Amino acid sequence: MKRVGIGLVGYGTVGSGVGQLLVDGADEIRLATGREVVLHTVCELDPVRQELVPDGVRVTASFDDMLNDPAIDIVVELIGGIEPARSFQLEALAAGKSVVTANKQLLSQYGAELLQAAEDSGTFLRFEASSVGAVPVIKVLRESLAAAQVTGIMGIVNGTTNYILSAMAQTGAEYGPTLKKAQELGYAEADPTEDVTGKDAAAKMAILSSIAFHSRVNLHDVSCEGIEGITDTDVAHGRELGLVPKLLGVAKLIEGRINVRVYPCFIPGDHPLAGVSGAYNAVFLESDSFDEIMLFGPGAGGTPTASAVIGDIISIVNTAPGGFIRNCTCYKQLRFFPSDEVVSRFYLRMKVADQPGVLAAIAGVFGDQGVSIASMQQIGEEDSAQLVLVLHPVKEAAFFAALARIAALRGVHGTPRGIWLVVSFGG
Amino acid sequence: MKRVGIGLVGYGTVGSGVGQLLVDGADEIRLATGREVVLHTVCELDPVRQELVPDGVRVTASFDDMLNDPAIDIVVELIGGIEPARSFQLEALAAGKSVVTANKQLLSQYGAELLQAAEDSGTFLRFEASSVGAVPVIKVLRESLAAAQVTGIMGIVNGTTNYILSAMAQTGAEYGPTLKKAQELGYAEADPTEDVTGKDAAAKMAILSSIAFHSRVNLHDVSCEGIEGITDTDVAHGRELGLVPKLLGVAKLIEGRINVRVYPCFIPGDHPLAGVSGAYNAVFLESDSFDEIMLFGPGAGGTPTASAVIGDIISIVNTAPGGFIRNCTCYKQLRFFPSDEVVSRFYLRMKVADQPGVLAAIAGVFGDQGVSIASMQQIGEEDSAQLVLVLHPVKEAAFFAALARIAALRGVHGTPRGIWLVVSFGG
Repeated sequence: MKRVGIGLVGYGTVGSGVGQLLVDGADEIRLATGREVVLHTVCELDPVRQELVPDGVRVTASFDDMLNDPAIDIVVELIGGIEPARSFQLEALAAGKSVVTANKQLLSQYGAELLQAAEDSGTFLRFEASSVGAVPVIKVLRESLAAAQVTGIMGIVNGTTNYILSAMAQTGAEYGPTLKKAQELGYAEADPTEDVTGKDAAAKMAILSSIAFHSRVNLHDVSCEGIEGITDTDVAHGRELGLVPKLLGVAKLIEGRINVRVYPCFIPGDHPLAGVSGAYNAVFLESDSFDEIMLFGPGAGGTPTASAVIGDIISIVNTAPGGFIRNCTCYKQLRFFPSDEVVSRFYLRMKVADQPGVLAAIAGVFGDQGVSIASMQQIGEEDSAQLVLVLHPVKEAAFFAALARIAALRGVHGTPRGIWLVVSFGG
Repeated sequence: MKRVGIGLVGYGTVGSGVGQLLVDGADEIRLATGREVVLHTVCELDPVRQELVPDGVRVTASFDDMLNDPAIDIVVELIGGIEPARSFQLEALAAGKSVVTANKQLLSQYGAELLQAAEDSGTFLRFEASSVGAVPVIKVLRESLAAAQVTGIMGIVNGTTNYILSAMAQTGAEYGPTLKKAQELGYAEADPTEDVTGKDAAAKMAILSSIAFHSRVNLHDVSCEGIEGITDTDVAHGRELGLVPKLLGVAKLIEGRINVRVYPCFIPGDHPLAGVSGAYNAVFLESDSFDEIMLFGPGAGGTPTASAVIGDIISIVNTAPGGFIRNCTCYKQLRFFPSDEVVSRFYLRMKVADQPGVLAAIAGVFGDQGVSIASMQQIGEEDSAQLVLVLHPVKEAAFFAALARIAALRGVHGTPRGIWLVVSFGG
């Protein structure tokens, strides 16, 4: 029975989770794969973390040291960030070692380079843990659905923002205090920027849509808007309309072109994604050949992420040499569909002066831009009123043009707030 | 580039779906796997179906003819039933050809024999389409979660019964007319026995729990109860309690032993499975290493099932010779946990005479058996009353003993109706 040696770079939360699963699950892995998969070496600089490495496993602070060891077959990179992670992966692949990683920043920006390096050296690069934690969306897309022609992905792919929005919807609290509480409870990091701006979700959507559409989507191809602008007022108005706030990643094939976005939106309370609360993630996949599939599970956390890493290790052990399932599945070069031309629904709230003519002016702007109103509610406040509108599907360019013109109207106070409204898949 | 020849047995709904996907998706499959996967021969007795086979594909009525053709690498069996499907599969495997099938009856009864045959001949047997249609639960269990030590499966794995129960809950109609309508709409077969008795779900649960727990579970190890006894009265009472009726397959590891069941139950309206309506299926997987994962999608239908078959073909093309991911993953021999000793919750409805002493007698029986009442509602009718009770978790043996004694009480009319109540995973 051939022995497979694992070299693990980075022994933090996920790294130590992988180490633990490799040790605890050694029998299961051997029985499942017919191979002895052994945690051979851990490369870690921090002496405190080095202490956590199980007995019998080599510890080194030098990546070169690990790289030059012929006993290492698979390098697991869990340090995150661009450098030195990128160099480590490229060197490992060039040395004929396959790589497993959870590094979404790196994959969403340098995926093409890394996958090509794996292809060139006849090795494998696997990165399930970079997208939806324990939920094997990439494997399902790459393998089960390889011939299924996926036409859309819609998902909650960031647990932190989902926790914050779920909590806001539940408690009615404002964004600021809710974020603070999430930080105290460990659901948000001290610097939450990557999460709350939608960047983390955008990186995951870039990876997922590259795999699903077989065409390279880079992080900079994904336009994104975060949740910082969502107010308790909007959440409350949404609730009255039966709507729940979510940060969604939406990737669609439109007329053979790709559009990938991350934005805050309202979805109906009875939509399957509305029930995905807290730190959970969920991804809908759409295809003509299977209608809709949804995958749901914990999106982050040491053990779930570690479980995805183990799945990738098993996948590599299991894959035929020569790579029948290729590393680079982006064999199409599809163009991008401009967001301006996407047809979307919107919720819109604005504060207006309670005086004659204001509504007529707003309606006039909508009429000019071809924006049609599905429902409108006016809520009186002292000397002004809140207008809450739900619009019929409209080209985004027309919506945002109308929004800008309305914001400039005399009698409209502050900035009108538009939020996407997703009532069904991709609409 | 090596060519992979497919021989398809049975060109009905699923078979022709597979044929179509192989032809339409030829480019995608070639790009994904690096192999030319070609529908070479169709074996079909029915001349009308033979007409549907695409041009350029050989048609034969003789399985032996197909079997002896060296151009066939993978046999796809889609005729269903036990014989001749079992013989066909065994002969194909013995001849060194891998087999893909959607045949849940066969797999749930002769899985051990067939998987051993594949193992003996160094071929592969894949059967994703036998469980949850387009949703790759088996692949996720076998590969992604191979080392994750799954401890529970809970799912809606039969679309027909889910359609009927969803429709009953929505319209308030009785079981009989709802079944009839489902038959008219094509959601239920002319002979719906396999579905409505829970047998179809039991076969799927046998297959899924075998894979998840790495231990052989045969169809006859799954106790099952169907939906024929569910009345509109119960559905209405359930709705008042915020409960939705579902036919669930529930497989659990209890104290290292396996318990697999199929039964009708009520679940809370805000449970993720409550939103799975119509012909959709959903499966929850539970493990210490990832908490909960849910997979959701169309459970049946020609194209979704065909899509799962294609996924299996790709999996075989992709798997290393020698079978690192083994056919037989049932390397444990776990014992079964008796259903009598399982602790469950129950909803209970009975019609009682509106006279003194009846309630005291019922309460006395519950007290004797150690059954504790969580809530009770009494609804007056002319000269009798409906009692609707929700019980605290109780050993099933105690519950059913109490039920039998209560049914025999003077003042209790007809048969009391107990329905499982599942408020969370496995509880």
